Amino acid sequence: MKMVRKILPSIIASAVFTTTGIAGAEDGFEDYRNRFEPLPYLPPIPTNNSLTEEKVELGNMLFFEPRISSSGVISCATCHNPALGWADRIPRAVGHEGQVGERNTPTVLNSGFLGAQFWDGREPDLEGQALGPIEAEVEMAMALETALDRLTEFELYQEKFADAYPDDEDPINADNLAKALATFQRTLNTPNSPFDRYLRGDISAISDQAKEGMVAFVDNGCIACHSGPAFTDSRFHAIQVPGSTDLGRYLVTGEESDKYRFRTPTLRNVAVTYPYMNNGATETLEEAVAIMGQEMLGREFDEATIDNITAFLHTLTGKMPDFEVPALP
Amino acid sequence: MKMVRKILPSIIASAVFTTTGIAGAEDGFEDYRNRFEPLPYLPPIPTNNSLTEEKVELGNMLFFEPRISSSGVISCATCHNPALGWADRIPRAVGHEGQVGERNTPTVLNSGFLGAQFWDGREPDLEGQALGPIEAEVEMAMALETALDRLTEFELYQEKFADAYPDDEDPINADNLAKALATFQRTLNTPNSPFDRYLRGDISAISDQAKEGMVAFVDNGCIACHSGPAFTDSRFHAIQVPGSTDLGRYLVTGEESDKYRFRTPTLRNVAVTYPYMNNGATETLEEAVAIMGQEMLGREFDEATIDNITAFLHTLTGKMPDFEVPALP
Repeated sequence: MKMVRKILPSIIASAVFTTTGIAGAEDGFEDYRNRFEPLPYLPPIPTNNSLTEEKVELGNMLFFEPRISSSGVISCATCHNPALGWADRIPRAVGHEGQVGERNTPTVLNSGFLGAQFWDGREPDLEGQALGPIEAEVEMAMALETALDRLTEFELYQEKFADAYPDDEDPINADNLAKALATFQRTLNTPNSPFDRYLRGDISAISDQAKEGMVAFVDNGCIACHSGPAFTDSRFHAIQVPGSTDLGRYLVTGEESDKYRFRTPTLRNVAVTYPYMNNGATETLEEAVAIMGQEMLGREFDEATIDNITAFLHTLTGKMPDFEVPALP
Repeated sequence: MKMVRKILPSIIASAVFTTTGIAGAEDGFEDYRNRFEPLPYLPPIPTNNSLTEEKVELGNMLFFEPRISSSGVISCATCHNPALGWADRIPRAVGHEGQVGERNTPTVLNSGFLGAQFWDGREPDLEGQALGPIEAEVEMAMALETALDRLTEFELYQEKFADAYPDDEDPINADNLAKALATFQRTLNTPNSPFDRYLRGDISAISDQAKEGMVAFVDNGCIACHSGPAFTDSRFHAIQVPGSTDLGRYLVTGEESDKYRFRTPTLRNVAVTYPYMNNGATETLEEAVAIMGQEMLGREFDEATIDNITAFLHTLTGKMPDFEVPALP
């Protein structure tokens, strides 16, 4: 567990070190560059779930814990696989007994920056999100009470929950499980991508082609929805991508106007979180850019524009976060 | 990949550092101690598959690669999970579409020291073993040709195979896949356990109870089969454990005398690789010791003997090996 204990100090040290950019350097794109924000080293932390080393360590264990699935072999890390951009790189998630879910697995990277969780935004925050996949019949298929009972059997979890929630008499409960998982996820960020370094003043951090892509991204209006540090407004927009009949947010609200609406996905690390769209039917970034042009903006991008935007999107791949493969009990 | 490149130098450095024991110290158990061998830092390396950094790195990637399974989510690391002693801690392996296999997943830790692979010894070495689970219908369920085609699609694998097998014109083939996986597995060793330190002369590395357990282990004849550095003779012995009708080695040879015979499992890290026996039906180490006494030795161990042997077995848990969660393409 030693490495986990080092995560917070290392985040702080990195932040101090790298926010000092090369101020003043200019390349003529200031008006465009000023439309963007670098990714902070940590997302907002909710007041009722402070970020502590103990919760990060516990959350890290739970994230890799397959015994809170009914088969005993599926953990959060099965679909949110750190080897695969913390997603799964298949079109739609495969879960309990090989069942295929309806949607593509979103990466958990930078998910603390999102204002709504899941493709349909059915949960507002990571605490709300964390328990969903455990109980979902097509994912881990485990009743929450059974999962908690299973954890309680292990002395090590009794200790780690007590360490993380020292004021709770009976700390192994659903709330605390969710809070620990959410806390761990809030450490899975990818700051300091080439584009972040560019925004901080290192004008050679991205190529001229990527800068042209940035211009196209702004001028064509991609930035209207893909805005803010995580490149998402966390709002819902109607889109029917090839092959999908998914009603999206309508399934949550029942409002006619929400049919086919989905939360804008983050574009951070988009180059390493293929395939794309809510149904994962789009394999390449170039295709995804073309489809978004057609469906959301009503434009047929020419090949050069697609290539430039794609080059720009590649600059959003940051440093993968530190974590530990835990020694589970 | 930087960490992987450090594995070999670190193995060598550790070996140099720790083989220098506290020579000469005596505790009166020399006659017992001399019956055992410390675990070397590396197992024997076959002459036709030299251990190179490039193969270790490639094998590490392949070990965590779920896209060589037909579901796209099962990798070697699913059942040989580094968080769970490189095994799965469930009775019988769960694989493709949630199918439950016939046998308990053996750990890959120190598997390079075994003279026969699988419970029934149907392969003599790790090269032979490596491809089995990819093709097995109840495990990864992927035709080998399809797996190789899938790997060939990724430029990164083309590079890494070429790096690992520089003399091969067409390096992505079944032989080289098996060799890389076997090479990686040969780095997954757990030397320097408390018992190894004890054998090297640090007489306080294990408790008095564990020493009593060592005596019982020798005097009762456990050591007859659980011998050598990995605590296995790699031979086949007949046993019918509770709940099992598995014919074992007979299914490989068809010889009547091989009915119910299984390869002696390693006892290295046995405390962290529960549950036990070929069908995984035995949950605790204490039960496992009692059953082995009854079935293999015809003895009813008293409680103190069981506790002592269990304490001894706990001293066989070594330092978990270095590895990297790879960044897959």
